[in-house]
Amino acid sequence: MEHNREFEIDGNSNPIQISRLALDIGGSLIKLVYFSRNSGDDEDPPKDKVGVSNGVNGRLHFAKFETAKINDCLEFISANKLFLGGECDSGFQHQENCTNDRRFIKATGGGAYKFSELFKEKLDISLEKEDEMDCLVIGANFLLKAANQEAFTYLNGQKEFVQIDHNDLYPYLLVNIGSGVSMIKVDGDGKYERVSGTSVGGGTFWGLGKLLTKCQSFDELLELSHQGNNRAIDTLVGDIYGGMDYSKVGLSSTTIASSFGKAISDNKELEDYKPEDISRSLLRMISNNIGQISYLNALRFGLKRIFFGGFFIRGHSYTMDTIAVAVHFWSKGEAKAMFLRHEGFLGALGAFMSYESPSLDNLVVNQMVPLPVNASLVTDTNFDTLKGDLNGTESIRCSIYRA
Amino acid sequence: MEHNREFEIDGNSNPIQISRLALDIGGSLIKLVYFSRNSGDDEDPPKDKVGVSNGVNGRLHFAKFETAKINDCLEFISANKLFLGGECDSGFQHQENCTNDRRFIKATGGGAYKFSELFKEKLDISLEKEDEMDCLVIGANFLLKAANQEAFTYLNGQKEFVQIDHNDLYPYLLVNIGSGVSMIKVDGDGKYERVSGTSVGGGTFWGLGKLLTKCQSFDELLELSHQGNNRAIDTLVGDIYGGMDYSKVGLSSTTIASSFGKAISDNKELEDYKPEDISRSLLRMISNNIGQISYLNALRFGLKRIFFGGFFIRGHSYTMDTIAVAVHFWSKGEAKAMFLRHEGFLGALGAFMSYESPSLDNLVVNQMVPLPVNASLVTDTNFDTLKGDLNGTESIRCSIYRA
Repeated sequence: MEHNREFEIDGNSNPIQISRLALDIGGSLIKLVYFSRNSGDDEDPPKDKVGVSNGVNGRLHFAKFETAKINDCLEFISANKLFLGGECDSGFQHQENCTNDRRFIKATGGGAYKFSELFKEKLDISLEKEDEMDCLVIGANFLLKAANQEAFTYLNGQKEFVQIDHNDLYPYLLVNIGSGVSMIKVDGDGKYERVSGTSVGGGTFWGLGKLLTKCQSFDELLELSHQGNNRAIDTLVGDIYGGMDYSKVGLSSTTIASSFGKAISDNKELEDYKPEDISRSLLRMISNNIGQISYLNALRFGLKRIFFGGFFIRGHSYTMDTIAVAVHFWSKGEAKAMFLRHEGFLGALGAFMSYESPSLDNLVVNQMVPLPVNASLVTDTNFDTLKGDLNGTESIRCSIYRA
Repeated sequence: MEHNREFEIDGNSNPIQISRLALDIGGSLIKLVYFSRNSGDDEDPPKDKVGVSNGVNGRLHFAKFETAKINDCLEFISANKLFLGGECDSGFQHQENCTNDRRFIKATGGGAYKFSELFKEKLDISLEKEDEMDCLVIGANFLLKAANQEAFTYLNGQKEFVQIDHNDLYPYLLVNIGSGVSMIKVDGDGKYERVSGTSVGGGTFWGLGKLLTKCQSFDELLELSHQGNNRAIDTLVGDIYGGMDYSKVGLSSTTIASSFGKAISDNKELEDYKPEDISRSLLRMISNNIGQISYLNALRFGLKRIFFGGFFIRGHSYTMDTIAVAVHFWSKGEAKAMFLRHEGFLGALGAFMSYESPSLDNLVVNQMVPLPVNASLVTDTNFDTLKGDLNGTESIRCSIYRA
């Protein structure tokens, strides 16, 4: 294949070496994963017996942009020359690639198709399209096998990291909550089936939330939900049963009988409700629904573990709590919801892995190192989309070996 | 039990004899079922060998009120004396009951508990509470066994009545869509289990719809959805994939990827969207979600038939179409969605059946007769809640036999 070539970062003294970017362009967000080599050689993996370096150490970085603001993303890529091929730039270290006259980036998600022309026109970059589900599965498998402290459970406000036994990983259900939700039964590397999904996902939370509260961002809406109380707007079992449980069928008085049901009978307009309460109800409705449908699909295939990824979650405790409680409730404790630290970047990581060299197995992640992402970027850019981002401010220390 | 007594309507010439009412008081609606005897004796069932009448012919009537307007309902009951027991009223025919000093009505739903005191205070009527799930199952079984042209399928705009073989009725999944949704696996008369449910139901459609469109009634909101186009606000697969299908996983470009997803990226306020489109998106999101969760539960228990009831549906073609398509899609044609003509009155019918005499089996429904419900009521009331109601304007011709 045309883009089959060695990937290498040489020993040049340039302190920051950014190389290899992959994109996941979804309906709401563009996720970026890229690698930067460490500044010194001291941390590089040991050389082999004949003194040849087996690889380089560096960091994987994670960033995101709103899809609606794709021009910011294009500018970011252009300013930092985050692509392979094309004319050689003295500040950028792709000497082996200099002869290639095609500039390209691996990309997945629907936007890799939709915005293909835009990348070509504006940056003269080709998007090498990778299948979305392939990438999600590759990304999830990579994180679950290679990264320490990646998967965790969340119950009663307690986050607990889970050590995954590589020999006992499969099968599992991967639930990726982006704008919409995909549910994928994963049986091994490259072995999977998209068994279900729902259109009630992150785009629904954000879209409905924007209409109902006039919040201008997903994070603002999520933040609002912290202070909200869904009882102000949801009809609880107790509201129907005069404060009582409906114990015969196991419904306590505090169970939500009808999401947004109180809006029916209250003589209130939209403006009379607190945006905080609306956000909370919405978040609970959607998280609970995803948890329930996920569990029902896990049950279908006898899967005990469900890993939730995608940018909807954003490490938000109430979201995770609701999903975990839903899975616990419906499965009567049989199935377990687990979350991924790099939840939002599964697809982008998968696309990153799809560069043909080094192979997946050669990317070794040593440990997580919280590190401001901006620190590793050329500093004359002024993008603030990375701020306040749970994932965007983290990087993974890792080594890339020659294939 | 205190209320165990013969129920009888005598041969008095009073042209309209309304007797026996049962209520289902839900989170949004109060459903009423009551019986009226035919004016003449000519249609009564034949007398037995010693000349004793075995029963009377008449009609079952269906009506509803908003729970928020419960006072209208109380007035209606009072004006028409729709209760058993208490002082005898010359215009009302309960002579055998005149000695009883307690007035009561069979009632189910959470409101039977919540409004118990209100009925006592305002009308001096006791609500004889019947379990909600019991009543739903009794009502559904009754309709499926006794009524002609009750169950039907709905696909591609075609309604097709299904003749149910009584010996092949069980097991089935009963999905009752009220404010919230209950999913009940029915194995026989009185044999059932509430296996699942969701808080995303009719209350969610109406509640969110009211907040988003300022519609003042459920029916208005439903009516609006006719003219709407959900593509104006939902993100379709094609919107993400630049107009293409994502055919590898079987998603066509017109599949909804994210309900309300377009509201994210559009630079629009709530006011900029057409209420018709919002209503349509909401209806499709909720109907589709219920269809999916129902199917997953049917699959769990190997149930091929799913009957949908509850007042959410209201014989609305788009709602039924969406639910039916969801069940068809997710089950790959294996499971079948069926609807009930008297969908909204399952619980009220069940409560009606729970009067101890005559027994369930003795209520024989001959046929459906569309008949304005008001025609059989004392005419000095002026309630308009019954207008424009698909179910409320129908009655069932039936006979009641002595137990």
